[in-house]
Amino acid sequence: MNKQQALSLVKPHLTETRYLHTERVVETALALAARFHVDPEKAMLASAFHDYCKYRSLDEMRQLIEDSDQLPLHLLDFHHELWHGPVASILVETELGIKDRAIQSAIYWHTTGHANMTDLEKIVYLADYIEPGRVIPGIEHVRRVANYDLDQAVFLACKNSIGFLVSKSRKVYPETLNLYNDLVGTI
Amino acid sequence: MNKQQALSLVKPHLTETRYLHTERVVETALALAARFHVDPEKAMLASAFHDYCKYRSLDEMRQLIEDSDQLPLHLLDFHHELWHGPVASILVETELGIKDRAIQSAIYWHTTGHANMTDLEKIVYLADYIEPGRVIPGIEHVRRVANYDLDQAVFLACKNSIGFLVSKSRKVYPETLNLYNDLVGTI
Repeated sequence: MNKQQALSLVKPHLTETRYLHTERVVETALALAARFHVDPEKAMLASAFHDYCKYRSLDEMRQLIEDSDQLPLHLLDFHHELWHGPVASILVETELGIKDRAIQSAIYWHTTGHANMTDLEKIVYLADYIEPGRVIPGIEHVRRVANYDLDQAVFLACKNSIGFLVSKSRKVYPETLNLYNDLVGTI
Repeated sequence: MNKQQALSLVKPHLTETRYLHTERVVETALALAARFHVDPEKAMLASAFHDYCKYRSLDEMRQLIEDSDQLPLHLLDFHHELWHGPVASILVETELGIKDRAIQSAIYWHTTGHANMTDLEKIVYLADYIEPGRVIPGIEHVRRVANYDLDQAVFLACKNSIGFLVSKSRKVYPETLNLYNDLVGTI
């Protein structure tokens, strides 16, 4: 599946704004993949479909989490914003036939991150954070670091996300802290 | 053991500054215990001995963590500032004969906190944070809330601590996040 085919498959599932975001995430992920020697086709597919389930109903996502033996039930204890990645990691296979553990895992973890991420997972996580449409305090620094150090850029994105959530008194998914703790000592 | 006996037992193990802090933590813990209906003797003992091992050598603490079957080895992956509580929870029993699971647990968790803390644990954690000698941004708000809502005051102390650590790019102990997530929905 080439980039245009992937984008045309995901387009009907997204708002126009979200589709344009997805296009930018794909371009950003491809640039990061070239820079950090990651398979460009996997980076393209994972980034094209990372938000595939962003607009599924909460009821459909809750049901799928409850019924699946691949998704942890404790997702339901956290904000529903964290559900669409894990749900998409299942539905890209059952609905679109994308059956590739590395791609599905990058889709699964693109919102929260986790400890010991693969480079493909890091690239999708980071591309989603730094794509040129994002306006986030501190993001220019993350973009600069993403030019030369994947781990440090992921760390900065993760640190900013945790700081934002805590400042707003919102729950933080434990794996996000594990990613932060995983990288904090390495930079 | 009364308060004077407890304080005279801990005094030789502390610097003068730390001893004066301990006296203030005891008074703060006793006030919180009266306010929130917690056993005053347990609050006194746990707060008197919370920093009992603050000045043990890193080698002694590391050895005890490695040798004990009651302390998790992963403590060694985190800053040594987190070791003295767990170590003291063991040594108050073997060196001083204080064998009380509730008191020892409050000593154990006074630095990091954890999910589903007992009220005694919360009181020692909070007294250590808000005792009148502490100068921490936002502490006056925590002190005011501690006059009427134990959980909310613990949440604010925990939130401030995580925010501080993340702003300094320092590791956060996972149980500290669990405490935060545990209380974030209840206030």
